[in-house]
Amino acid sequence: MRTRVGIVGAGPAGLMLAHLLRLAGIDSVVLERRSREYVEKRVRAGVLEHPTVELLRETGAGERLDREGLPHHGFALRFDGVDHRVDLSGLTGHPITVYGQQEVVKDLIALRLAAGEPLLFDVSDVALHDLTTDAPRITWRGADGTAQELTCDVVAGCDGFHGVARQSIPQSVLTIFERAYPFAWLGVLARTAPSADELIYTYHERGFALHSMRSPEITRLYLQVPPEEDIADWSDARIWDELSARLATRDGFTLTSGPILDKGVTPMRSFVAEPLRHGRLFLAGDAAHIVPPTGAKGMNLAIADVRLLARAVEEFVRNKDERLLDSYSADCLKRVWRAEHFSWWMTSMLHLAPDADPFDRRLQLAQLRYTAASDPARTSLAENYVGLAYERL
Amino acid sequence: MRTRVGIVGAGPAGLMLAHLLRLAGIDSVVLERRSREYVEKRVRAGVLEHPTVELLRETGAGERLDREGLPHHGFALRFDGVDHRVDLSGLTGHPITVYGQQEVVKDLIALRLAAGEPLLFDVSDVALHDLTTDAPRITWRGADGTAQELTCDVVAGCDGFHGVARQSIPQSVLTIFERAYPFAWLGVLARTAPSADELIYTYHERGFALHSMRSPEITRLYLQVPPEEDIADWSDARIWDELSARLATRDGFTLTSGPILDKGVTPMRSFVAEPLRHGRLFLAGDAAHIVPPTGAKGMNLAIADVRLLARAVEEFVRNKDERLLDSYSADCLKRVWRAEHFSWWMTSMLHLAPDADPFDRRLQLAQLRYTAASDPARTSLAENYVGLAYERL
Repeated sequence: MRTRVGIVGAGPAGLMLAHLLRLAGIDSVVLERRSREYVEKRVRAGVLEHPTVELLRETGAGERLDREGLPHHGFALRFDGVDHRVDLSGLTGHPITVYGQQEVVKDLIALRLAAGEPLLFDVSDVALHDLTTDAPRITWRGADGTAQELTCDVVAGCDGFHGVARQSIPQSVLTIFERAYPFAWLGVLARTAPSADELIYTYHERGFALHSMRSPEITRLYLQVPPEEDIADWSDARIWDELSARLATRDGFTLTSGPILDKGVTPMRSFVAEPLRHGRLFLAGDAAHIVPPTGAKGMNLAIADVRLLARAVEEFVRNKDERLLDSYSADCLKRVWRAEHFSWWMTSMLHLAPDADPFDRRLQLAQLRYTAASDPARTSLAENYVGLAYERL
Repeated sequence: MRTRVGIVGAGPAGLMLAHLLRLAGIDSVVLERRSREYVEKRVRAGVLEHPTVELLRETGAGERLDREGLPHHGFALRFDGVDHRVDLSGLTGHPITVYGQQEVVKDLIALRLAAGEPLLFDVSDVALHDLTTDAPRITWRGADGTAQELTCDVVAGCDGFHGVARQSIPQSVLTIFERAYPFAWLGVLARTAPSADELIYTYHERGFALHSMRSPEITRLYLQVPPEEDIADWSDARIWDELSARLATRDGFTLTSGPILDKGVTPMRSFVAEPLRHGRLFLAGDAAHIVPPTGAKGMNLAIADVRLLARAVEEFVRNKDERLLDSYSADCLKRVWRAEHFSWWMTSMLHLAPDADPFDRRLQLAQLRYTAASDPARTSLAENYVGLAYERL
């Protein structure tokens, strides 16, 4: 088999890249280790930046998003038992949109299949070859177990942090930047109406908590827990008690509980592998970088990466111009490091590190109080959260 | 002897407090361990916030400041060999003023002595007594060795970090917040014209450097060095070489050298003692809090403290109203913690910590690049640097 672009991974990065390439008339093949059902149900991020929403809309992938996505014009910083609203739309002119990652994935899969373009689930033994030649190859076993091979002009590694793409690059040519945080998020999906209209980021002496939602009927809640926490230790009752304690306000916030549909513990990590290119292999999304979830940047960075990659591939295929491919890594890394810093900042401000001394705690409160009180500080937070316009970076 | 307010220490805090009290018609006595010559020559901070300048002006202490102080409408963040200007006046409406702390001290001493108000230098064995009564006392030995005693309504502890005032408070009633930084500043005063019109805060792989000045003829320069650095290891030639290396730019910045008048190593520390009150003793300035010098906040915080203390004492003396005395500590601490956070932030962004990993370094660069590029981020830096208006905190 031959194609222009072999795409490993059918998450938001891989599917959006295939979508953008199709619009540019460039063939691609998408390979995914998991089943369609699995990737469509995988619960991940749920906040779309404004630039992400615009790109989905402009490329015809925003129809259901516009119908079902929840525009949020602000969120609350809750500390000392009081809410301080960050008026995203007032400060930046744009809202964010609450819409689950798996919904974006569903929409992009539906578009791909409707267009009759190749998207192969349940593949195994994916391996990349000849990456530093003009004709890189991908081999794998299909869902039926048969050996397959694909020769491409470009391979896109969109297969996440644990995928084969980054691991196919010699360690000697990658520089790794990494930070493990001394806490994790216990995430809960509950069938109950959200207890507030907007997200609530809570700094509390018992630890960080986040009130969020996926729809008018589904609440998404998070608790800071130790990094190796066993989810088996958290009964539903304990989860609701702890959430209620951390989300308590002076004027009596009431958290509505309901059946818990899904719960799990996610470690918090910052990670960047540089550069995002090796020969004809280009990394995008979690394959190249991880942010802690506090800033809600993971999926948005993946979309921003493949936006640049699609353009670069288009210039290469149409005009034999490799300049955008050559600058792809550096171009991506500007936005990546902005998001890495922002996510680290939000995380550091809102979580209790086990080794924090009283001075650290006072710094956190000073930062929170200033952010809540200062127009430029709130605007700085808002522009990062809503997403800096693509042309700004 | 009897007076309303016994003031320990003739630095900016003690002298400004005495000045404000005199304007309110309230008697005070200022005691200073050092000689007049010593305190007038002591080289310390040199950046006055806008609110500090306004207060000095409004209270008749700004005549020479207005004549000789250098208004600075901006400064540069220098990194990657390029300057990024922070337009303080454009972003906040106000400049800062470069005017040495010892000049403020000289002006306030002259005003005090011209008014014939008591200001006693070269005192020794200062001790505070009966602080939790209505009639606290101060005892000391005068310049001639004779034992002296002063009974007051209020004692103001303005005698710096190493002074007796804070040490007179039982440890059990104070909470200490502290951070030692793993680096110090080597400061140099040189008789040479500044090499640029404005301050230059430089992030460099060899360590932080600051180009500053005290007058059109006197340059003030700083180098990040290890905390226990021996100044004897730094010949003048080595100092100029290192400054030139760190301050180098892509377009060829030239550092003008000249005779070094003064050089020394200053450790970097963050420190807050809470509360700022014990009975009738009120702490102000460095006696209660220390900031690292990066944000140029030390003297400005001292002036902000005594502005509140003078008002509180006036309410107490005139109207027997103790409410402002009661809220003095909490009122000061809002500004103190804002400045503690800002100073820590500036310090963390610009210095190389010996234990920093590559991820930390990238975060610093991401923060610097964002601050240089974003209007709200630059405005946030500028409003903190110029000084938040007193009514804002």
